[in-house]
Amino acid sequence: MSETAASPPARDGDQRCRIVATAERLYREVGYLKTTVADIARELRMSPANIYRFFGAKAEITAAVTRQLMSEVETALEQIALSHGSAGERLRRMILANESMNAERYICDRKLHDMVEACFAENQPIIDQHIDRIDALLEQVIREGVAAGDFAPCDPHLAARLVHVATIRYCHPRLMLECADRPTPTSAQMMEFCLAALKAGAATERD
Amino acid sequence: MSETAASPPARDGDQRCRIVATAERLYREVGYLKTTVADIARELRMSPANIYRFFGAKAEITAAVTRQLMSEVETALEQIALSHGSAGERLRRMILANESMNAERYICDRKLHDMVEACFAENQPIIDQHIDRIDALLEQVIREGVAAGDFAPCDPHLAARLVHVATIRYCHPRLMLECADRPTPTSAQMMEFCLAALKAGAATERD
Repeated sequence: MSETAASPPARDGDQRCRIVATAERLYREVGYLKTTVADIARELRMSPANIYRFFGAKAEITAAVTRQLMSEVETALEQIALSHGSAGERLRRMILANESMNAERYICDRKLHDMVEACFAENQPIIDQHIDRIDALLEQVIREGVAAGDFAPCDPHLAARLVHVATIRYCHPRLMLECADRPTPTSAQMMEFCLAALKAGAATERD
Repeated sequence: MSETAASPPARDGDQRCRIVATAERLYREVGYLKTTVADIARELRMSPANIYRFFGAKAEITAAVTRQLMSEVETALEQIALSHGSAGERLRRMILANESMNAERYICDRKLHDMVEACFAENQPIIDQHIDRIDALLEQVIREGVAAGDFAPCDPHLAARLVHVATIRYCHPRLMLECADRPTPTSAQMMEFCLAALKAGAATERD
C-alpha cells in the first residue's frame, strides 16, 4: 500500500506513539497495576502480538510512558530556560514548574504514582537521564546569571546540582507525597534561599 | 521479693529496654522481616506473653527500636548544638553527624533499612517527631548565629526548616540509598551553600 492510499497504514513510529499514549491513558483511568498488554491492544484494536513487535514486555511500555511524562517536564523547563527574564527569575519559574508538573502527574493522580514507583524500581537509567537533563538546564541558566553579574562566580555545574538537590523535596514523587503534610518551607522560599547562596557565591569548592 | 533480694526482678522499665535492645540486635543479625516476637522472647528467656505485657504487637516493638535509633541521633546532634564553636561550624558538624549516623544505621546495615521502610509506612508520628526535634536543634544554633552576627537577621524557625529540607538527601534513608551513585554534591558542599544563604539573609519571608 502506498503513502497516498485512502487509509495509509500507521508507520511504526506512529504506532509506537499510539501504544504509549493509550497505555498512559489506561494507567490513569484504570490504574497501572490493573492494565495488561491485552487491554492496551484491545483499546487500539490491534493484536497483542503487534504490541510485542515494539515492546518486549509491559515494563518496556511503562518505561516509555514514564520517559514521555518526564520529557514533557524537560521541554517545559527548557522553554523557561530559553525565555526572557533574569537568571534568578528563570530559575524560580523552572523549579516551580518542575514542582507543579510533577504534582499534577504523580501526586494528584495516584494511579500514575503507582506506575512511577514501579518504574523507579526498575529503570534507574531513565531517572538518571531525567536528573541530568534538568541539571544541564539549570547549569545553563546559572552560567548566564554569572555572566550577567547576577550571581557570584561559581562552578555552574556544581551550583546546578546544589539547587536541584536542595529542591528535591519539591520534585521527587515519593518525597512530595511523604511531605504533603509539611507545606513549609515552600518551594518559593527554598528558591529564595538558593538564590541568596548563588548571589553570595557558595558553589565554588570542588571538595 | 524485695529490692534487696539476691536476684531482684528486672523492673518493668528495664524489661522494656531489654526487649527493645534484643529486638534491635535480632533485626540487625537475622533481619527485620525474619524476626518474630517468639524469637525475641526466646533470646530473653521469657514467654511471648511477657513481651505482650509491654508491646501489643511486633509493630510496636519496631516503633520503639526506631524511636531508640532516632533518639541516639538527636542526642548526638544536641551535644554538638551545645558545644563550643561558631554557629556555622556547629551546623556543619550537625549535618555531617546526621548523615554519618543515618548511613551507619540504615544504609550500611541493609537489614535495618528494611525495618525503617516498614516503620516509615506505619509510624509517621515517630518520623514527624524526629524531624521536629532536629529542626528545633538547628533553629537554636541559627538563632545564636544571628545573635552573634554570623548570620543575617532571619526567621530562625524557617531557616532551620530550609537547612533541613535542603539536606534531606543526606539524612532520609531511602533517598540516601537512591542517591548512592551520585556522590556529589557532598553534604559538606551543600552546607557551604546553606551557610552562604544564611549569611546573606534569605530566610526572612513568610511567603
